Amino acid sequence: MAMRYLTSKLAQQIDEELMGSVGAFSIDQLMELAGLACAQTLATVYSKDKYPRVLVCCGPGNQGGDGLVAARHLGMFGYKPTIWMPKPGSKDIYKRLKAQCDNMKIQTLEPSNDTQSLKSALASSDVILDAIFGFSFKPPVRAPFDAALPLIANSGLPIVSVDVPSGWNVDEGKVDALALDPDVLISLTAPKEGVRAFKGRHFLGGRFVPKTMEEKLQLNLPEYPGFSQIVELPRADDAQKL
Amino acid sequence: MAMRYLTSKLAQQIDEELMGSVGAFSIDQLMELAGLACAQTLATVYSKDKYPRVLVCCGPGNQGGDGLVAARHLGMFGYKPTIWMPKPGSKDIYKRLKAQCDNMKIQTLEPSNDTQSLKSALASSDVILDAIFGFSFKPPVRAPFDAALPLIANSGLPIVSVDVPSGWNVDEGKVDALALDPDVLISLTAPKEGVRAFKGRHFLGGRFVPKTMEEKLQLNLPEYPGFSQIVELPRADDAQKL
Repeated sequence: MAMRYLTSKLAQQIDEELMGSVGAFSIDQLMELAGLACAQTLATVYSKDKYPRVLVCCGPGNQGGDGLVAARHLGMFGYKPTIWMPKPGSKDIYKRLKAQCDNMKIQTLEPSNDTQSLKSALASSDVILDAIFGFSFKPPVRAPFDAALPLIANSGLPIVSVDVPSGWNVDEGKVDALALDPDVLISLTAPKEGVRAFKGRHFLGGRFVPKTMEEKLQLNLPEYPGFSQIVELPRADDAQKL
Repeated sequence: MAMRYLTSKLAQQIDEELMGSVGAFSIDQLMELAGLACAQTLATVYSKDKYPRVLVCCGPGNQGGDGLVAARHLGMFGYKPTIWMPKPGSKDIYKRLKAQCDNMKIQTLEPSNDTQSLKSALASSDVILDAIFGFSFKPPVRAPFDAALPLIANSGLPIVSVDVPSGWNVDEGKVDALALDPDVLISLTAPKEGVRAFKGRHFLGGRFVPKTMEEKLQLNLPEYPGFSQIVELPRADDAQKL
């Protein structure tokens, strides 16, 4: 049975059920495991010796929260993360996640609507973690992200995107001119409909889906190896050959 | 510089600081990472093919919470965990962690003051995760744990203890006749004074201590490999030889 790709609507439903009666998880728990999986994926592909300086780009929603958690874990792994979060979310959890990064002495660029600080940061980074937009993204891309995405795309740096590459339509894929073209993707819980044709290295994280939910929704998730929190998926090209 | 072994008092202080201004962590986050480290340690030593049935013994405090998180992750890894938690803690977090296990269809023995159900469960288990008492333990061992510890000790099953083997004095070690004699120990954050002479395989987990805290308290934690959440420590005998 083929792995199921989630529509944005189903992804939203699963998220609600995981934090509701089906899962009973707190957002703290889910974000911790999701962010850890993001950090472990980046560390799997880009070693801290060759790519120590990670620019973690965070959006205003839950995806930005995953980015903050990932930044903290990357710091624990020995990377030198810097956070760019121009529109910090107002929820209590983002404030706490940000305080945890502050306590780890992880630098955050000043929130701002212009992209000057982003430009400088890109010039002194080795790899980007794109945690800007996730499965709740609805076009169009708004300021300052409309100016930021081309800067990130043209930086020449490798990009690891979280869940859905920023600028992509969650259901339809890479249809917008502003869409990023990441090298690596880490899907969370299950991959989204829009990333079916993604050509780079593709990982899955979020090893917390109850079996009953997986079966009811026929997610057909791949088997994670051992006690790993991430699993690499076959490349789109290879999967078609099978 | 040698790794620091924590007194019960210092362990308590660190726990408070991690959840206070020094760390700003929520208990959900710390328990999630601690419990994951416990599950990964057990999975490192006891394969799910040879030791599928894990009896997770949980105390009434935060250590029991770590056990519930570990049970859930063990279930995700493909083990068949069963929970024995005769005195469930009253805090909201234990109820949520228990509900998460229920949602994963992990069996919990009925809470009870007698040890009949524990006896049966021991007879159909392959390995024990001992999450009964942690660094807040103060003797004496109270019912039903006074009757349970000898049953666990005499079961002949391998034991993985969390943080401090149950029945051990946190500062003085294995001085009580009821103390367990585990094969494996997973210390959390930093090892406690009482386990200095522990002779089995010894792991460290809880990779969330801010560098500033580590330096201020001169913890001299060992380096974790790569992006692992656990690190194995040299055996007490080997360390003395060095």
